[in-house]
Amino acid sequence: MSAGVAERFGKLVVVGVGLIGGSCALALRRVHAVERVVGVGRSRENLDLAIARGIVDVAHTLGDDWTRELADADVVLLATPVAQLPGLFDAIAPALGASTVVTDAGSTKQDVVLAAERRLGARLPAFVPGHPIAGSETSGAAAACATLFDGRSVLLTPLAITAHDATARVSSLWRACGSHVTTMSAAEHDRIFAAVSHLPHVIAFALVAELAGRKEGEAIMAHGGTGFRDFTRIAGSSPAMWRDIALANRDALLDESRQFRQALADVERLIAAGDGMALAALFDRAARARRAWGATFADDGDAA
Amino acid sequence: MSAGVAERFGKLVVVGVGLIGGSCALALRRVHAVERVVGVGRSRENLDLAIARGIVDVAHTLGDDWTRELADADVVLLATPVAQLPGLFDAIAPALGASTVVTDAGSTKQDVVLAAERRLGARLPAFVPGHPIAGSETSGAAAACATLFDGRSVLLTPLAITAHDATARVSSLWRACGSHVTTMSAAEHDRIFAAVSHLPHVIAFALVAELAGRKEGEAIMAHGGTGFRDFTRIAGSSPAMWRDIALANRDALLDESRQFRQALADVERLIAAGDGMALAALFDRAARARRAWGATFADDGDAA
Repeated sequence: MSAGVAERFGKLVVVGVGLIGGSCALALRRVHAVERVVGVGRSRENLDLAIARGIVDVAHTLGDDWTRELADADVVLLATPVAQLPGLFDAIAPALGASTVVTDAGSTKQDVVLAAERRLGARLPAFVPGHPIAGSETSGAAAACATLFDGRSVLLTPLAITAHDATARVSSLWRACGSHVTTMSAAEHDRIFAAVSHLPHVIAFALVAELAGRKEGEAIMAHGGTGFRDFTRIAGSSPAMWRDIALANRDALLDESRQFRQALADVERLIAAGDGMALAALFDRAARARRAWGATFADDGDAA
Repeated sequence: MSAGVAERFGKLVVVGVGLIGGSCALALRRVHAVERVVGVGRSRENLDLAIARGIVDVAHTLGDDWTRELADADVVLLATPVAQLPGLFDAIAPALGASTVVTDAGSTKQDVVLAAERRLGARLPAFVPGHPIAGSETSGAAAACATLFDGRSVLLTPLAITAHDATARVSSLWRACGSHVTTMSAAEHDRIFAAVSHLPHVIAFALVAELAGRKEGEAIMAHGGTGFRDFTRIAGSSPAMWRDIALANRDALLDESRQFRQALADVERLIAAGDGMALAALFDRAARARRAWGATFADDGDAA
């Protein structure tokens, strides 16, 4: 592959043809970077839709003998909920071709790495852990969209043992989808996402569950305005998916949550002491940082 | 005033011709519910803009002898930052006409009531504490908009001593602006808004300030996606305004914050214990409540 020319992939196997897996296939097809896409999933109905939409060429349910598709596959993308990855590693390990590269799309990485280390055996060097930052719900093939990854970030967390060529090929795949690719360790990834994603979700869930659990909770929430709307939006996310993420990234998430509770207790002390100067200075640091962040974010909308 | 016919106001004095005060004047003019609007403010430049935009007919700066406008005013709307209200109560008390009604637009109510009780003297029955729920920043006359209050909620927290007629007139004024009006006690108001507005703001400020204070804070935040964007949007709000609100509603806010920290600590315990069942159940309660809330909110957008 020469610079400036996108690598072409002969055969891509997508396990989990939902928002992420389906969009990846569509994005690659858009730039003619893939010849043949095989879809694998739980629901025949969803797979038929994926064929009808031109996302995949052929499709197998997980009950079929689908692993025979792996021997001549260039890339296998595991885009199912993270909880299914250990079982999938067991299933694919004996069936992968000599040059097949494997990647995933899970929101947490250390747990995925651990499962891969235990289950992929001699094929571990072919596995490149990944996390495309786009969408959070697997809403099926119906939600897939060729532009989902345009301008978005994809993080790869290769192991020391991961083949450089495997990392290069997965990186090339996501760049062909329109994303920019960053490489870091799985531990660093999990610390960062505990801070900017997992903790905010847990806070929003905790706050809304606490309010909703009150006798007059609905009447109180009825007074929420646009600030409440935006702040709590992520509390409407998939409970099962976020349970899995919270447990998978337990240590980093607990560190972040405890650190945040301490920070909130510090703010409470300023309020209790009536220390308006220190309070305004702290709010100002946050406002400046948030506005600077918003200026770099592609779609910050009507940021206050 | 007969049912179905909007009350007309002869003379309205708006102190603070910003987003709230200016929009109220424009909304009343739209339905011909006011004959004459007098604007009062700090900045001559903003007042000149308010005249040019047809928001007010005449305008005085706070340095002028503006209180002579109050003797024949029907309603005085104090729409400045809450911290200026005590001084304004002192200034208006001796100048109000016998039938002039006074209201405010502050985000907290018990502190405003206390200041009014101490400073309005014999004119206290003419004061109707209010809180229109629309916009959070005073962005000047340039931001004023006749439709700001359409379909929005305005809360009034009359005192036991407040004249029924005064409450009825202020209520009529806000309905003429397109809002629906609810009456409750100042204490209830402050408890509710501590929960649905003040605590979310404090949490967002605390979280972003904590992140931004880290050596690698900017690099971490660079990985924030749309969830982080929405969750932290209110951290970009006015630090001075939110310092005032946090201190003004100190007791209710501290109650809510401590209760929330306890709820978050409870979630941490479930995560630490690996109790996926209880964690999913808690997230599910939140997700159901948030989705139900979103279905009742006029503009929930792309709620997850």
